[in-house]
Amino acid sequence: MSRLRVHNFVVTLDGFATGDDQTLEEPFGTAQDEFLPWFGRARVWRPEFRPGGTTLAPSATESIASAWGAGFGADIMGRRMYHSGPGPWSHEDWRGFWGEEPPFGTPVFVMTHWEQQPLSVGHSTFHFVGGTPAEVLKRAQEAADGKDVRLCGGPSTVAAFLAADLVDYLHVIQIPIVLGHGIRLWDGLDDLHRRYAVESLVLPNGTTHLFFTKNADI
Amino acid sequence: MSRLRVHNFVVTLDGFATGDDQTLEEPFGTAQDEFLPWFGRARVWRPEFRPGGTTLAPSATESIASAWGAGFGADIMGRRMYHSGPGPWSHEDWRGFWGEEPPFGTPVFVMTHWEQQPLSVGHSTFHFVGGTPAEVLKRAQEAADGKDVRLCGGPSTVAAFLAADLVDYLHVIQIPIVLGHGIRLWDGLDDLHRRYAVESLVLPNGTTHLFFTKNADI
Repeated sequence: MSRLRVHNFVVTLDGFATGDDQTLEEPFGTAQDEFLPWFGRARVWRPEFRPGGTTLAPSATESIASAWGAGFGADIMGRRMYHSGPGPWSHEDWRGFWGEEPPFGTPVFVMTHWEQQPLSVGHSTFHFVGGTPAEVLKRAQEAADGKDVRLCGGPSTVAAFLAADLVDYLHVIQIPIVLGHGIRLWDGLDDLHRRYAVESLVLPNGTTHLFFTKNADI
Repeated sequence: MSRLRVHNFVVTLDGFATGDDQTLEEPFGTAQDEFLPWFGRARVWRPEFRPGGTTLAPSATESIASAWGAGFGADIMGRRMYHSGPGPWSHEDWRGFWGEEPPFGTPVFVMTHWEQQPLSVGHSTFHFVGGTPAEVLKRAQEAADGKDVRLCGGPSTVAAFLAADLVDYLHVIQIPIVLGHGIRLWDGLDDLHRRYAVESLVLPNGTTHLFFTKNADI
């Protein structure tokens, strides 16, 4: 059973997961200065959590964050997470935000209506695909070959999959700031909690973790 | 020094503190069915937390909730918390939502542009006052005679005092549900966290508690 999982998804107290005016230089736009320090504190995106990385004697924070790296055979992300902004592709030589060895190590399905040839960067290959969330998930699950599929973001994409009831596991890292603007995760997800078992946990770094698990007995 | 404190203020994951369409029968409107069970779980509004009440060997949940009752000489609330809805007063015999012994036991300043004579109910007296948040706070602090002033709600009223930077302490009980509609606490409060020290705590009942303290060294 290939599940669809979201890990380490950072939202503010008022529910925002990014700011406005994202650019290639500042993928979180106007939230950039408030968000990035929390990614460090929450140990998100650290090289040692990638397959083959090593973390000895992890803290609680690291144990939770490192689950991001475990058991995935494919990724899905929204176009704005790959490139920022809507509309036709700009910057023909763009290769994503992650340098020459992106942390995915999988086929990554980038949801977009704008066609582009697949692009391999390090051990990751980006495929640019249209279709509904269910259709894109089906393609990703076929590529995952029995492993789970990781839903990376951004907030509009995660919300679309949640609205379509396709997500098996959602891990949210809530940071205690009030951003006041940007793109919310929760919009349009009324009564989301009724479809999940929900656990909460505060870590010493000040983050609150929410775990939404489908079909769990907790 | 008479501080202005908010205790036991319940918000959802998406930041809502009440639903739409509040009525005298259902003060939380469309959120009524989702909210009230959490008030019970979080031990909010329990008689034993009022002055003179007794709680022996309180749990963590009860210890935190009971701080609502300690050290207050006056209250402030918005008109909709007292009566629901905007506009002229209806129901001439209305005496609030709390029966014949409201839990306040203080002079309660109800913010409204609509005049009404003071009304005593049990050990509480409701005063109906206009003015800015700062002006109403000044009146309440004079009445509190050196004790603290409790800011009861609802969300628009608490947000107005937070926006005016008049709140010394804010205790929020976040419940892990996504309501999707209603009145938000956080709207218009960009960067609120920069004015406070913030602590978070999860209790076994599933609630996450956020403590915003001004001028604290934590």
